[in-house]
Amino acid sequence: MSQKPSLHTSISPALLNLYDLSSSVVVIIDVFRATSTIASALFNGAKSVIPVDSVARAIEISRNIDGIAAGERDGMIAEGLQHGNSPLEYSREFIENKTLVLTTTNGTRLLQMALDRNADTIVSGSFPNLSAVCDFLLKEKKNVVLGCAGWKDRFNLEDTLFAGAVIHQLDKHFTIHCDSSLMAETMYIKYKNKLVDFAPKLTHYHRLVERFGLIEDIRFCLTPDVANILPVYTEGKLIVK
Amino acid sequence: MSQKPSLHTSISPALLNLYDLSSSVVVIIDVFRATSTIASALFNGAKSVIPVDSVARAIEISRNIDGIAAGERDGMIAEGLQHGNSPLEYSREFIENKTLVLTTTNGTRLLQMALDRNADTIVSGSFPNLSAVCDFLLKEKKNVVLGCAGWKDRFNLEDTLFAGAVIHQLDKHFTIHCDSSLMAETMYIKYKNKLVDFAPKLTHYHRLVERFGLIEDIRFCLTPDVANILPVYTEGKLIVK
Repeated sequence: MSQKPSLHTSISPALLNLYDLSSSVVVIIDVFRATSTIASALFNGAKSVIPVDSVARAIEISRNIDGIAAGERDGMIAEGLQHGNSPLEYSREFIENKTLVLTTTNGTRLLQMALDRNADTIVSGSFPNLSAVCDFLLKEKKNVVLGCAGWKDRFNLEDTLFAGAVIHQLDKHFTIHCDSSLMAETMYIKYKNKLVDFAPKLTHYHRLVERFGLIEDIRFCLTPDVANILPVYTEGKLIVK
Repeated sequence: MSQKPSLHTSISPALLNLYDLSSSVVVIIDVFRATSTIASALFNGAKSVIPVDSVARAIEISRNIDGIAAGERDGMIAEGLQHGNSPLEYSREFIENKTLVLTTTNGTRLLQMALDRNADTIVSGSFPNLSAVCDFLLKEKKNVVLGCAGWKDRFNLEDTLFAGAVIHQLDKHFTIHCDSSLMAETMYIKYKNKLVDFAPKLTHYHRLVERFGLIEDIRFCLTPDVANILPVYTEGKLIVK
């Protein structure tokens, strides 16, 4: 019997350095809302999503390629931009055949960290594209690191619940000796049939809903397979594989 | 109504810098096995436990004060020492009225980090002294940071389960907006009546039991209130408060 590849869950960007990324597929997870928005935009026909680390760079690049500059800081549309980090902003009518240049507080930063640490492959994961992520990981048969973006290095449950959802589908196909993964799957199994009802207990829910009224965003971000494509990072862009 | 103090859970030493320790009681948690051993030694009459960061320093200090030098590296008795990190080594017959000078992989390192970050108060927590920890936190009415030692910065479930046990007793008395704490309490509630049965799923269990056969240690470390004293750090030593 051939040895199964390994799977680990990094529950904060501050812990990503504990894992070997160079031989791994790294799944960037920022459920509220970067990776859900990336899935939404690409599912609705965006040519690509270019993740960048600053508002200035988002504006500069989008101007050069006639793209849409978008992003958030602390949950709100970033100053100087017209478009934010809501998956519902990126309808087919709006985004089809366009390039989205996106900067976010946590997700794009984690992606840059994975790049800096020479990840073998980087994909973007969220409930809206859960099955596409699982199918890809199963097919690749490489080691996997599920990278939770968290909130400014703090642990958050929504990213961990998504990691748990992936593990729940794939655990028979990987070698998993990792308390983070065990915790993630346990939490997911407990809440999988009531994710939206559970959401009000999450710290980040209050950041989004109480301050910005984004309950429809939350619902989208917690619904499996409503934008079921696989964003893969290649040559500076996320494109559909 | 006066405002309740806050409670946060730091699930890895690499995340401790996210929390303000200067106005907090910090509970050092290293269930397998440093803080269980500290509780055991002090419960059995040790005068104090001096945590140190190296084997050389453990030997030097213990020689000067006629104490017992002890410690582990990677789960085993550290090279050059006669005593390790098993709570069962420190019976009353052996340790009463003696000073234990202890160095461990994770727990003593985390304690040093809390000192460096000017924690208001540092106490040592483990299942064997669960109630003493809870009683103290309730009485102090200060902010609390539950600091999990983990394993070389990785998340581990046993420390988080102990954090969850504390939260489960105290949650009505503290303001808790912290996904780590929510997760810790949820995991604890799920496994509280079968901690020893759950243990074989833990990464660290395999490190200890499969390599060193320490099943009795594990059982002691997961049993509430069998060494129910409160070790408080003061002037370089942990003493019973």
